[in-house]
Amino acid sequence: MSLKGNALVGQSGGPTAVINASLHGVIEQAMQHAEIADLYGAVRGVQGLLGEDLCDLRAETAETIARLSSTPAAALGSCRRKLNDADYARLLAVFRAHDIRYFFYNGGNDSADTTHKVGQLAKESGWEMRVIGIPKTVDNDLGFTDHCPGYGSVARFNALALQGSGLDTQAMATVDTVKIFETMGRNAGWITAATALARAQAGDPPHLIYLPECSFAPARFLADVKRVVDRGQGCVIAVCEGLRDAEGKPIVTFKHAVGTDSFGHAQLGGLGEFLVDLIANELGIKARADKSGTIQRSFGPAQSPVDVAEAKMVGAEAVKAAVGGASDVMITLVRTSNHPYQCTTGTAPLEAVANAERPVPEEFINADGNDVTPAFLEYARPLIGGPVPPVARLTMVRVTKKL
Amino acid sequence: MSLKGNALVGQSGGPTAVINASLHGVIEQAMQHAEIADLYGAVRGVQGLLGEDLCDLRAETAETIARLSSTPAAALGSCRRKLNDADYARLLAVFRAHDIRYFFYNGGNDSADTTHKVGQLAKESGWEMRVIGIPKTVDNDLGFTDHCPGYGSVARFNALALQGSGLDTQAMATVDTVKIFETMGRNAGWITAATALARAQAGDPPHLIYLPECSFAPARFLADVKRVVDRGQGCVIAVCEGLRDAEGKPIVTFKHAVGTDSFGHAQLGGLGEFLVDLIANELGIKARADKSGTIQRSFGPAQSPVDVAEAKMVGAEAVKAAVGGASDVMITLVRTSNHPYQCTTGTAPLEAVANAERPVPEEFINADGNDVTPAFLEYARPLIGGPVPPVARLTMVRVTKKL
Repeated sequence: MSLKGNALVGQSGGPTAVINASLHGVIEQAMQHAEIADLYGAVRGVQGLLGEDLCDLRAETAETIARLSSTPAAALGSCRRKLNDADYARLLAVFRAHDIRYFFYNGGNDSADTTHKVGQLAKESGWEMRVIGIPKTVDNDLGFTDHCPGYGSVARFNALALQGSGLDTQAMATVDTVKIFETMGRNAGWITAATALARAQAGDPPHLIYLPECSFAPARFLADVKRVVDRGQGCVIAVCEGLRDAEGKPIVTFKHAVGTDSFGHAQLGGLGEFLVDLIANELGIKARADKSGTIQRSFGPAQSPVDVAEAKMVGAEAVKAAVGGASDVMITLVRTSNHPYQCTTGTAPLEAVANAERPVPEEFINADGNDVTPAFLEYARPLIGGPVPPVARLTMVRVTKKL
Repeated sequence: MSLKGNALVGQSGGPTAVINASLHGVIEQAMQHAEIADLYGAVRGVQGLLGEDLCDLRAETAETIARLSSTPAAALGSCRRKLNDADYARLLAVFRAHDIRYFFYNGGNDSADTTHKVGQLAKESGWEMRVIGIPKTVDNDLGFTDHCPGYGSVARFNALALQGSGLDTQAMATVDTVKIFETMGRNAGWITAATALARAQAGDPPHLIYLPECSFAPARFLADVKRVVDRGQGCVIAVCEGLRDAEGKPIVTFKHAVGTDSFGHAQLGGLGEFLVDLIANELGIKARADKSGTIQRSFGPAQSPVDVAEAKMVGAEAVKAAVGGASDVMITLVRTSNHPYQCTTGTAPLEAVANAERPVPEEFINADGNDVTPAFLEYARPLIGGPVPPVARLTMVRVTKKL
């Protein structure tokens, strides 16, 4: 069962605030196993591997390695690359040339697919190696795992950002009445849903939440907005960039202008600005849009400590599992208790992970399709590693009028 | 010289992360002066005053007041309202009715103008009162003060956000090569300039910085971008929402679509997306845009401790100055030393403040108009209350190729 040789770790797909914590976990754990000789990093994931671009992780200082857990983005560099048959053959050649017997690939569905196929080809070719997927995605849409490393931190950022942006809107409610707060999430609304964690008491923003799991109907949306605006305290709306209409088409598609003649007059996309426009035209109400874009997944100070610890844990568990003989699996997170929150790890077949997508389930979305349920809050609250900070709420005892 | 009566404080214009710290300073200090009887808050600034909408700040708990300093936005509510002669007369009537002898108004140029005019009218009418402006603006464009409370925190947010977003871009440099990072700043580039504080060493993002103080020339911009992209490590560009062309016209104007027929095809604004489009069309390079919008001025965890302390200080000093006999002035910040950083307060006539705007001076902008100078960094660094956190930088010692 003991397999001796070198190990390789790579990072794939969109960065998160904690993917480097998983790298930290891999490195720290790999150093503890005599089976693992050299420990290499793939520079820019499989893209680097194709060019045989490997770096020596044992050459890094202890200080650098310790800092990985608090460093957002992807320290080894990342890529988005779909491989063809020739690419897979090339990967295997690189593995053989460098005696790679352990391959750890940190990513989402596509990376699980890549890792699985690498493992299959190695087996068919008689190259003994163990391949393990390490979960990562801010979108939180992987199956077989309670949640995904990276999600807790993007959720924390958005809860904190919505809290502030919501207070800002309420302060300016008679000027900029509506705030559109756009989050990431191409096909699933997990990130948008997390803005609900900004609420500390009833009536707190966000007042409306729209997920791509429910088709977006402009008339219903405008009625919702009007109802909230009429309360007089502003209206803060969290929307997912992936919102779709009843036919499943994106609400707004980014279109590139053609040619330079369009300078200043380009046809431009942007869901937030589209909704600002819709509200202005249909309701005659002024709105503003915030779109933090990649800031939400890379803001170091908003790392969830729970997320950091779990990201590191799945990295370490990947090494333990591989050294123990496992292969062709992804490490999963298994919640064993919610009060107090406790989480351990399991495994799931890479092939199953590669082909599954997990949208926000019905029981987490309210009947009107414009908010989340208490069950979602129960699920998500522990992941952000502590509530949003308390804020001053003036009671504003009114002074008797004299005029 | 002693003037007994009630005091009134109001917040005006766009919120900041620390305007409530100034309110905290006013309340705490006002409680210490026997000259001040009741202490009122104007609900939504002058807009509330016109409706005689005052609240009793002495009725708030000590816990609520202590929390003000860590609460972003504007706890009393704010407004943007230009007053006419009838409005000013009404304000004076409210002041007389409630025996307001001290008026503290926390805002920017326009608020200074309002406060000055209130003071003038009171004097002409024989109503003895003292009016003091308290500076506030994320834009940092007030004259007569070294910097403005609110700026240090928006600068801190943007330095932190650009650091993360920059790492994100570098990690994905072969996929999403260019990042457009759009900040606030209608007429002055102070906020955008602060993204330079994200750099810890040469070559760190942002690679290019464009301020509205320099006219924006697309051809020069594209040449800059191409030069940075060719280095192969991605290109991170900080731009100010207020960028203007050689004729002084905004690069992109937000246009509302007319009618619902335009659903999905509205002509939409957005500088970031315009530049993404320009780069795609002219250079054939993929870019993304981040626009944190109001998040940047309301993100509690990014408050600069220096900014919080100074915002509280100018609030307290406003009360001390007024009780001491001053009127018709704004409290200013006066830097007395940079190593170590030390700052005290002064005063400037409200009328002068009302009519001055302070753009980023030439000595803070490099000759090419695409970056800031070391002198700017010297100026801005102390204001964010500590550097951005260190990050792991893998040395990536390459493994010798074998294929």
